[in-house]
Amino acid sequence: MPMTMTQKILADHAGLNSVEAGQLIKVKLDLVLGNDVTSPVAIKEFEKIGVKDVFNKEKIALVPDHFTPNKDIQSAEQNKIMRNFARSMGIVNYFEVGQMGIEHALLPEKGLVVPGDVVIGADSHTCTYGALGAFSTGIGSTDMAAGMATGEAWFKVPEAIKFVLKNKPARFVSGKDIILHIIGMIGVDGALYKSMEFTGDGVGYLNMDDRFTVANMAIEAGAKNGIFEVDELTLEYVKEHSKKPYKIFKADEDASYSQVIEIDLSSLKPVVSFPHLPENTRTIDKVGDVKIDQVVIGSCTNGRISDLRAAASILKGRKVSPDVRVIIFPATQKIYMQAIKEGLVEIFIEAGAAVSTPTCGPCLGGHMGILAKGERAVATTNRNFVGRMGHPESEVYLASPVVAAASAITGKISSPEEVL
Amino acid sequence: MPMTMTQKILADHAGLNSVEAGQLIKVKLDLVLGNDVTSPVAIKEFEKIGVKDVFNKEKIALVPDHFTPNKDIQSAEQNKIMRNFARSMGIVNYFEVGQMGIEHALLPEKGLVVPGDVVIGADSHTCTYGALGAFSTGIGSTDMAAGMATGEAWFKVPEAIKFVLKNKPARFVSGKDIILHIIGMIGVDGALYKSMEFTGDGVGYLNMDDRFTVANMAIEAGAKNGIFEVDELTLEYVKEHSKKPYKIFKADEDASYSQVIEIDLSSLKPVVSFPHLPENTRTIDKVGDVKIDQVVIGSCTNGRISDLRAAASILKGRKVSPDVRVIIFPATQKIYMQAIKEGLVEIFIEAGAAVSTPTCGPCLGGHMGILAKGERAVATTNRNFVGRMGHPESEVYLASPVVAAASAITGKISSPEEVL
Repeated sequence: MPMTMTQKILADHAGLNSVEAGQLIKVKLDLVLGNDVTSPVAIKEFEKIGVKDVFNKEKIALVPDHFTPNKDIQSAEQNKIMRNFARSMGIVNYFEVGQMGIEHALLPEKGLVVPGDVVIGADSHTCTYGALGAFSTGIGSTDMAAGMATGEAWFKVPEAIKFVLKNKPARFVSGKDIILHIIGMIGVDGALYKSMEFTGDGVGYLNMDDRFTVANMAIEAGAKNGIFEVDELTLEYVKEHSKKPYKIFKADEDASYSQVIEIDLSSLKPVVSFPHLPENTRTIDKVGDVKIDQVVIGSCTNGRISDLRAAASILKGRKVSPDVRVIIFPATQKIYMQAIKEGLVEIFIEAGAAVSTPTCGPCLGGHMGILAKGERAVATTNRNFVGRMGHPESEVYLASPVVAAASAITGKISSPEEVL
Repeated sequence: MPMTMTQKILADHAGLNSVEAGQLIKVKLDLVLGNDVTSPVAIKEFEKIGVKDVFNKEKIALVPDHFTPNKDIQSAEQNKIMRNFARSMGIVNYFEVGQMGIEHALLPEKGLVVPGDVVIGADSHTCTYGALGAFSTGIGSTDMAAGMATGEAWFKVPEAIKFVLKNKPARFVSGKDIILHIIGMIGVDGALYKSMEFTGDGVGYLNMDDRFTVANMAIEAGAKNGIFEVDELTLEYVKEHSKKPYKIFKADEDASYSQVIEIDLSSLKPVVSFPHLPENTRTIDKVGDVKIDQVVIGSCTNGRISDLRAAASILKGRKVSPDVRVIIFPATQKIYMQAIKEGLVEIFIEAGAAVSTPTCGPCLGGHMGILAKGERAVATTNRNFVGRMGHPESEVYLASPVVAAASAITGKISSPEEVL
């Protein structure tokens, strides 16, 4: 039976020769992830299971990133539960404030995910690691608990949509624009419980950070996972970051897909998702006059070094609008350091932006840039649901780093071309 | 009638030849300050007064620093009230996120306070500017409202305690240690409604940042204000930062003081204030074995460039304890930029510390590093009251930047000598 990339990884981890869409299988896990919001719940569930130890001290990653540095007493208590659990269980990959970053940027950087892995994480954007040719998906805290105890998880094998990316992206078109374009096309449930498999010559034009962005937002189309074919660039990244053994899985040529969608990247324009769904997309030339109060550049979606470079290329030598608060979040300490070394942070501060220590921050309405009633933000984040970044009557417009940076300067949603 | 420094400034601003302690006088204000916590209340009061405009658009400073970047919806709404007021009144010195810093570090840096000024601020640490030979003091939001409307305020003229600082401070003894030593000596009400006037040859050994730290904590001894004699170093600072005219006031030689206290700076040791009052001081050799969970370096007390340099001199090439979260807050965007240029931020990140955008943060239990139950922090901040940095059963130990940095490395309260 021919299989998709995802199906091949799942079959391998289930110890089966082949699997088919719809089949229920138990798979071995290479990594189980939790954050400061979900881990405390999972730890409670884990304690109910009654096992003494986690299945593998090196295959669990705990990352306090959502409400850290601790926003309030409640988040401090939550983080303490996770920290104490990590210490008592001897969990190797607990990343304390000061050594951390946003989980989905941190784990690949730390070499904890490689091609062919199966990763579950109690966070919906766990699908990010698909950029590395891994199967990774978000699960609930109960599944996280079971995963920590047994090193296994049950899955229904997903069918897949194949996205054939063609040609070189047009100027100012990034991974963010590609995935927003796709979500605009198929809708927020367009890939419900399916794999989004990305292939085609266009992939070769996307750097790893762009691929992470695309895979990261697969969940915003309802997908079980997003996954890229492994190429030379993937392997270069893996060799630079990890010593873990990896395995490359390629879809069978005659694999069956529920849909095959071709996208000509050279024909795309920068895309903005209007409130209150990522599918409410407009190309940048159709946004009209939208005044903004805040710009957020960062998150697990777009807080990597390429994103900061892109934003800096627009902000360099310019000043942000006096009517706009601009907050920039390098996604990890390593990215923060790199941004300092390259002079990007100086460009941001010079332009009048606040540069924060790594945190999920305002993306999920956590802290560090919450919106008041009626305020509007352009954000490089991943969701623009009602009240996502603050007051229920605030608005979030999703965009790429260059669009966010251009908007910061003009005070309204703008194309980079308006300011260059 | 001979007068103290403070009395001379007050007499001048009251249009009187002389004043005496206890006298009620009305003085002209050079600056009225508010932050995101106190301004919204003051603005409400201001609106009740019924005047159309503020007394002077250039003599009001509004600084969102306590809960910014906005911690939550409530703080976003508070900040919006202040921002809208600043815009509608045409207030020149409103400092938006990205252009801001902690108020008491920001105002001198922006040249808004010079020697001889009278400044009121709706924040208790407004006494900081006494380092510049100004009279500055914290007031309530109602007085702030009246100040914004009329440009005047009523005061009871304070009597003064004269502190004669002598000799060069011992190694590792900073402004923070001097003021903690003093508070330990006279108690948290030791200077109640009095001026603390600092003079003596020892002042010449203190850089401006040290003097800001000392004046900043005058309120922690209950003082109305703290004030330093103006010297060459003061004037150098003023010329570098401000174009405002200034006026130097010197105490009469025969001025009367309620107390004169001589302090030999060469005999001091680093000081730590134990929970839960700044007066609970111990010299560093007497702290015993106090394990800690967090280190905070920053605040209006110790977040200036000299403080960051001092911390970096200890952290350079070393790693923070894995059991400790270390969070460092440059007090203003300018200080942040300078710290980047000097390589200090790289030293901090390399050591495993989180470096935040400027904010008051956890100092007052706001955000960005709140303590859980039972946790202990060493902080370069100004207050260690019950629950000040989080849970009512958490503890704060006040110390200088070098002691905080050394403690970050060892995981317990430590002298710099232990790690060098």
